Amino acid sequence: MNITYTTIPGGVCAAKGFKAYGVHAGFRKNTAKLDLAMILADTVCNAAGVFTRNKVFAAPVGVTRAHLEGGKARVVICNSGNANACTPDGYDTANASCKAAAEMVGCAETEVIVASTGVIGQTLPTEPLFSALPELVKLVEATETGADLAANAIMTTDTKKKEFAVSYEFEGKTIRMGGMCKGSGMIHPNMGTMLGFITTDCAITSDLLKKALTNAIDDTFNMVSVDGDTSTNDTVCVMASGLAGNEEITCACSEAFAAFSGALHQLCVLMASAIAADGEGATKFLKCHVSGFRTVEEARILAKSVICSSLVKTAMFGADANWGRVICALGYSGVDFDTTKVDISFTSPAGTIAVCKDGAQLEFDEDIAKKILLEKEIIIECAMNSGESEATALGCDLSYEYVHINGDYRS
Amino acid sequence: MNITYTTIPGGVCAAKGFKAYGVHAGFRKNTAKLDLAMILADTVCNAAGVFTRNKVFAAPVGVTRAHLEGGKARVVICNSGNANACTPDGYDTANASCKAAAEMVGCAETEVIVASTGVIGQTLPTEPLFSALPELVKLVEATETGADLAANAIMTTDTKKKEFAVSYEFEGKTIRMGGMCKGSGMIHPNMGTMLGFITTDCAITSDLLKKALTNAIDDTFNMVSVDGDTSTNDTVCVMASGLAGNEEITCACSEAFAAFSGALHQLCVLMASAIAADGEGATKFLKCHVSGFRTVEEARILAKSVICSSLVKTAMFGADANWGRVICALGYSGVDFDTTKVDISFTSPAGTIAVCKDGAQLEFDEDIAKKILLEKEIIIECAMNSGESEATALGCDLSYEYVHINGDYRS
Repeated sequence: MNITYTTIPGGVCAAKGFKAYGVHAGFRKNTAKLDLAMILADTVCNAAGVFTRNKVFAAPVGVTRAHLEGGKARVVICNSGNANACTPDGYDTANASCKAAAEMVGCAETEVIVASTGVIGQTLPTEPLFSALPELVKLVEATETGADLAANAIMTTDTKKKEFAVSYEFEGKTIRMGGMCKGSGMIHPNMGTMLGFITTDCAITSDLLKKALTNAIDDTFNMVSVDGDTSTNDTVCVMASGLAGNEEITCACSEAFAAFSGALHQLCVLMASAIAADGEGATKFLKCHVSGFRTVEEARILAKSVICSSLVKTAMFGADANWGRVICALGYSGVDFDTTKVDISFTSPAGTIAVCKDGAQLEFDEDIAKKILLEKEIIIECAMNSGESEATALGCDLSYEYVHINGDYRS
Repeated sequence: MNITYTTIPGGVCAAKGFKAYGVHAGFRKNTAKLDLAMILADTVCNAAGVFTRNKVFAAPVGVTRAHLEGGKARVVICNSGNANACTPDGYDTANASCKAAAEMVGCAETEVIVASTGVIGQTLPTEPLFSALPELVKLVEATETGADLAANAIMTTDTKKKEFAVSYEFEGKTIRMGGMCKGSGMIHPNMGTMLGFITTDCAITSDLLKKALTNAIDDTFNMVSVDGDTSTNDTVCVMASGLAGNEEITCACSEAFAAFSGALHQLCVLMASAIAADGEGATKFLKCHVSGFRTVEEARILAKSVICSSLVKTAMFGADANWGRVICALGYSGVDFDTTKVDISFTSPAGTIAVCKDGAQLEFDEDIAKKILLEKEIIIECAMNSGESEATALGCDLSYEYVHINGDYRS
């Protein structure tokens, strides 16, 4: 099977049967900032979601998780500016929001996906949603190209809007898939730890949608870490309209499912990389590639340990080839390995430099290393020379700006 | 048993039978910075050590761990500026250093405690030690009050010298105990993750010394986190000269052992708190006290999860009462708890403010909260209302300066 996946425009509206829009509803004081997004499907879709593993999860996570047990969804509503987490009336508010949206678009309450992102512990007011909803639904229904505004409306400290879409051909049919997501703080392994919404016109059962999503997340969103914190609100949902005209995918062992999973994986890589690269205060996008290890699971733990290290992150910020911090982070990961077999190198568009061989220092030119590390995209290569498995973790450096954003972002 | 522990001056020279000194040997380029410390006991001492759990550990850790299997030590030598970790000839250098020190002071090579702190992965030159050693030994032997210089010589990015001593009376004898330590980056739970050297004139067996040290470290050094990184070089050693004149402590169930353990615990609290408060770039000393939980072990995990959170640390830097980040960090700790029973408050010299009750927000005055959080010492209180056990973790805020120090400290 040889499938070509093509990047296409259109975000969450790239697939047939989906419209979207974003408005300023009033969850934020700044009227220039959009804060309420809607994705509306023409008909009820098969749907699936994956959620935060934090014991403390926001009301909309609890509500959406319950809704998606039915495997169906018609509409997504998502506000930014307030997480609707840890307040006495959070569930009432989330349920009231679903009820209002369901009435407005004409679907069952359980077919609403609700999500929130922002500050924890402050009551989410219902008034902005209730007053904005009638106009928002009209705008969604009247517009073919509102994906961009929806992607804008879910941003918090993100500096860049994140929307992507891919398409592929399978047995004469074109299948499209689009997504939007937001980071960028509280991003850490465990689930995906962010908000992501994916739409596709592929015909596929809810169960297989869930299976494909879970697989894709394991080595994309779950390999991203910006600051080691796992949020209360993380949600990735996928809706499938079935309008591509393909024969419905009903078997996990079919080529059709493999082709679909490949597209979903590619889309999730694009989304997860964008989140890592736009980590709060990030000046560099970091990848840690651990190769030649016993198992994928252990390679993932090693790669994540490096990408999560504050000392590695600050070294990369300072363009300092301090590979000692890399091997140190491998060492405290909890995974057992032969330290005398580890080779480490740094790669960027400016070249590659080997800095550690067999767990010990190599002589290297600090000036060349600096030149390589001054680039905006760095790959930290850890060759463990102890097996055939590999994994890649995605992250960013730790800058002054991270402290600034998180030290006084509410003021 | 009612023992009073009194803080006394003198650092590692407070106990009978110990001398110390620190010099500039040349491990660092800056000649104004001391970089070689020695603690010398008048006679061979009972001794014990606890070391990093990082799979990647420095050569001096391997050498000292092997030496202390004999339970005896006479001299400590410690350089700063270079960690002697991850280099091909690290063990040769550490062993050569021990051999030179042993010959110079007249003890067995296995009675030397050797330690290093600084950059990982660069060959430690032997020349500075060899050339400085004769003069250093003379200075140590000639001086009663060199503890201060020794404590200075082991500092790296520490902004404050860390030395403490306590004394207590037991059955008519005065027992003294002193210590010096250094942080301040790469400080994270697991062992103690720093360098600490403790001396006492108490007569006590090596086995009980090890037992008392391990117990003391569990809820002091191991509860400190500055940046989540566990170093390759962490070492805490204790030497007991036996010159206090007490009957040797040989039983863990004796009152004498309990009294000694109390003193060691108090000394370790002082040292661990100083390390946390002087975390790299720290502007505030943070304690997280988790109370009312099922077990001490789980309470420790919860408290550490809060103290390690980059988002909690930056919120404290910004004097922002963002308790949502606190409950979020409890939530991803991996410990199961009833989120609807959690109460959270912040305490400082300026007062106490309750911000969360039963897992949900309380109305509180942001101005009062700000005033409390602008203080230099903050206690984050998490009452779990689910048992009788408690634990305290120690840490600091995350500031611009942390990024500055770690982003370009080698330049």
